[in-house]
Amino acid sequence: MKNLIDIKSLKTVEIEKIITIAQKFEHALESGVVESRVRGKNLAFLFNETSTRTRFSFEMACHNLGVRIFNFHAGSSSLEKGETLVDTVENLWAIGINGVILRHRDPDIIINTERDLKTKIPFINAGNGSMAHPTQALLDYYTMKKHLGTVEGKNIVIIGDILHSRVAKSNIELLSRFDANIICCAPEYFRDSKIKGVIWSDNLKECLKNADVTMCLRIQEERIEENIPFEKYIKSFQVNESNINKKSLLMHPGPTNRDIEVSSKLLDGEQGQTILEQAKNGVFVRMAVLDLLLGGTK
Amino acid sequence: MKNLIDIKSLKTVEIEKIITIAQKFEHALESGVVESRVRGKNLAFLFNETSTRTRFSFEMACHNLGVRIFNFHAGSSSLEKGETLVDTVENLWAIGINGVILRHRDPDIIINTERDLKTKIPFINAGNGSMAHPTQALLDYYTMKKHLGTVEGKNIVIIGDILHSRVAKSNIELLSRFDANIICCAPEYFRDSKIKGVIWSDNLKECLKNADVTMCLRIQEERIEENIPFEKYIKSFQVNESNINKKSLLMHPGPTNRDIEVSSKLLDGEQGQTILEQAKNGVFVRMAVLDLLLGGTK
Amino acid sequence: MKNLIDIKSLKTVEIEKIITIAQKFEHALESGVVESRVRGKNLAFLFNETSTRTRFSFEMACHNLGVRIFNFHAGSSSLEKGETLVDTVENLWAIGINGVILRHRDPDIIINTERDLKTKIPFINAGNGSMAHPTQALLDYYTMKKHLGTVEGKNIVIIGDILHSRVAKSNIELLSRFDANIICCAPEYFRDSKIKGVIWSDNLKECLKNADVTMCLRIQEERIEENIPFEKYIKSFQVNESNINKKSLLMHPGPTNRDIEVSSKLLDGEQGQTILEQAKNGVFVRMAVLDLLLGGTK
Repeated sequence: MKNLIDIKSLKTVEIEKIITIAQKFEHALESGVVESRVRGKNLAFLFNETSTRTRFSFEMACHNLGVRIFNFHAGSSSLEKGETLVDTVENLWAIGINGVILRHRDPDIIINTERDLKTKIPFINAGNGSMAHPTQALLDYYTMKKHLGTVEGKNIVIIGDILHSRVAKSNIELLSRFDANIICCAPEYFRDSKIKGVIWSDNLKECLKNADVTMCLRIQEERIEENIPFEKYIKSFQVNESNINKKSLLMHPGPTNRDIEVSSKLLDGEQGQTILEQAKNGVFVRMAVLDLLLGGTK
Repeated sequence: MKNLIDIKSLKTVEIEKIITIAQKFEHALESGVVESRVRGKNLAFLFNETSTRTRFSFEMACHNLGVRIFNFHAGSSSLEKGETLVDTVENLWAIGINGVILRHRDPDIIINTERDLKTKIPFINAGNGSMAHPTQALLDYYTMKKHLGTVEGKNIVIIGDILHSRVAKSNIELLSRFDANIICCAPEYFRDSKIKGVIWSDNLKECLKNADVTMCLRIQEERIEENIPFEKYIKSFQVNESNINKKSLLMHPGPTNRDIEVSSKLLDGEQGQTILEQAKNGVFVRMAVLDLLLGGTK
Repeated sequence: MKNLIDIKSLKTVEIEKIITIAQKFEHALESGVVESRVRGKNLAFLFNETSTRTRFSFEMACHNLGVRIFNFHAGSSSLEKGETLVDTVENLWAIGINGVILRHRDPDIIINTERDLKTKIPFINAGNGSMAHPTQALLDYYTMKKHLGTVEGKNIVIIGDILHSRVAKSNIELLSRFDANIICCAPEYFRDSKIKGVIWSDNLKECLKNADVTMCLRIQEERIEENIPFEKYIKSFQVNESNINKKSLLMHPGPTNRDIEVSSKLLDGEQGQTILEQAKNGVFVRMAVLDLLLGGTK
C-alpha cells in the first residue's frame, strides 16, 4: 500500500488490514500506551477546501503517533506563483516531508498529481471534489462492523445528495465490495446515473422500514448552482422520528444541517450518538492509514 | 471550576487560586523546571477575530505545559457549511479534544454554546465582542497585585473607549470584587450606562492626579460605525507625560495605537515597561487557567 | 551574529561559519542523531507574503532542532489594529519568543523594525520585497560549493527577472564576496542599474556557453505592473536543452514556471535534479542559522 487515493484502488485485504490496525490503536489508546513506528515522520497537510473534522481527526492521529504536522496554507503558497502541484510535492519531499494529505475542490488534481509524481511520497486523499473520500468510508465501515459485526446482506440506506457526495461514492464502493444491500434514496436531481449496483428509490418511508443503517448526507450547497426546493425536499427526504427505524444505526459524515436532512430531535437523542462515535472512530482509522503509509518510508 | 466564560461566574476563591498557581508557574519557569499535570492534553483554538498577544500567550502557555495545540481556521471550517458551534465542539470532544479556547465577534455565541453543550468540555473565553475577556482581567490583576500588593482602596483609572472594551468590563467586574476605587474617564460616546459601581468623569487631569493605576484602552475602531473626533479626543483623553502621575502604574492591554490614547514618549519610557510586563504575566495566568480547567479532564 | 537581515551585513567569516555548521548538520541528519543547543527555543513566523518552500524549510529546520514554532497569521493579527511591528515584536519577546522570522512585501519594514527594536531579539529576514533573501543565497552558495568546490573564478550566469528578484541580489552580493564571475543575462526591462560588479548581457547563448552555474529566475509577476512580452521573452531568455551547457549546474530558487524561464524537459532531466537538491540543502543552512542566532539567547 503506497497511497490512499480512493477505495477502488485498495485491495480487499488492505481494507481489512486497515480495520485490524485501527482496532489495535483503539485498544492502545484506551490502555494509554501507543507504540508508533512512524514517530518523527513529517506529514504535510495541503487543504484547499474547508475542513474541520477531517483535518482535526488527521491532526489527532498524527499527535497520537508522534507524526509532525506541516500546514500548507492554501492561498499563501507557491501554487499562487504558478507552480504545479507535482513540483510543490517534489519539493516537499526534498525538504524532508514523508507524506502528503490533500483535499482539493478539483477531483482530478489529486489523481493527476499522484500519477505524475516521480518521487514515491505517500499521498492521502482527504476528499477530492464530489469524487472520493476514502478515509470517511473506512471509518464508516469500521463503525458499522463494530455495531453490526458484518455488512454482508445488511440494508444500508443512503439518503439525500448522493450526486455531489464523495462520502456516498466511497461508501458505495466499499460496501459493495463486502456485499451489503445498498439502497439510495434521493430525488431525481440528487441521483448519479454512473453509480451501479444499488437500488434507487424516492420512497423514504419504505426504504427506512428495513434499514440496518440509515445514512444521512448534507446537501453540498457549495457544489450546487441551481436552487434546491428545500421545503419540498425536507417533506420527502428528511429523516426524523416519524420515519426512522429505531433499531437502525443512524449515521452522518457531518457536518449536519439540523432540521434539513435530519431532525434535531434525532440528532440529540440516543440514535444521534453514533454520529459522534463516527468522529471518534475516524482517529483510529486514520492512525492505521498513517501507520501503513508512512511506516514503509525511510 | 469547569469553564472560564467571564469574571462574574468565577468565585472569589477561584480567582485567588488562579493567582496562586500563576505565581507558582512564574517561579517554576524561572527555575527552568515546570511540572505539568496536563501534558499531552489537546486544546482547540477557535478564533474568529484577530488576535496576536492572546493567541501567542495561550500558545506559549500550552508549550510550557506540554499541551497540544489544534488550530481551527476561521473561514475554512465546517461552520461555513452550516454546522452549529455546539455541534462542532461536540465533534471535537469526540475526536479527543480536551478543551476549547474561543474568541468570537458575537458575544452571545460563547455564552449560548457553553449553555447548550451536553459534553462537559472545558471552555475558555478569549474575548467575546465587547463583553468579556476574563484572562486579560486576571493578568491585569496579577500585575497590579505584584506592584501594589493589593487593589483594595486603590484608585484604578480606566481611560477611553470603555463602551466597546471587553477588557474594561472584565477588569471592572474583577476589581470591584476586591474593593478597588474605579474611576472611568471617558467622553459621553464611550460610556456604558450599564456599568455600575464606578465613578464617571471627563476630567482626565483630575482623575490621574491620585491614580495608583493608569489603564489606557485602544479605541476599538473595528466595533464603531460612527466617526470618532480623533483630534478632540486626543486633546482631552490622551495619557501623556503632561498629565500622568509618575508614581502610578501605566497599563494597557495592547495593542497600542501610539499617540492616540497614550503618547509614544510614555510608552518608550520607564513607565511603559509595565505594559510588556502585562504580556509576560499573561503566560503565567493562562498556564494556571489551563492547569485548572484541563487538570480535571480524563 | 545577532541578526540575519541581508548578506551585506554578514562578515565573510560568519558566512563560512554558517556553511561549516550546515555541513555538520547534514551529516548529523544522515547519521540520525542531531544534537541541538536550541531545543525548546521559541520562534515566531511572521509572513505577510506567500511562501511554501522557505516556510516549510524553516519549519523543518525547527523540527530537526527541537525549536517550537509560533505562527503569526497575517491578516488576523494586531497589526490590523494599528500596532507597529516594533511593538508587536517587543510583545512577542515579553511573552517568551526567542527569535522572529519575517517575510514582508515592503523591503524597508524589516530593516526599520530591526533598527528600532530595543530588545535584542534575533531577527531573520526570510525575504523582503525585491531586496534580499539571505538564506536563499546561503543555500545556493552551499550547493555550488558542494559541486564546484569553490566559486572563485567560476562563471555564474543569472538569467531573467533580476530587477525584482531578491534572490538574485543576495546571490550577487554573496558570490562577489567570494570572487565569482557574475554574468547577468536579462532584457533591459529586467535590469537593475544599481547592481555593480557584474557583466550585463542579452545574449543568452553566449552567456551559457562557458557557464559553470546556470541560475534561472521566475518572473516575479506579483511585483510587476506592466505587461511582459512573454512570447518574445521566452524566445530570447528561456533556458532549455538547445542552449544550456550540459556540464553546468542548473539552479533555480523555485517555484518554477515551467516552459517560461526554463523548459520542462530540462527540469525533468538529470540537470533539473540540482533544484531539488537546493531545497534539501536549505534545511541544513537554516538549521545553522537558527543554531547561531538562537544559541546565544538565554
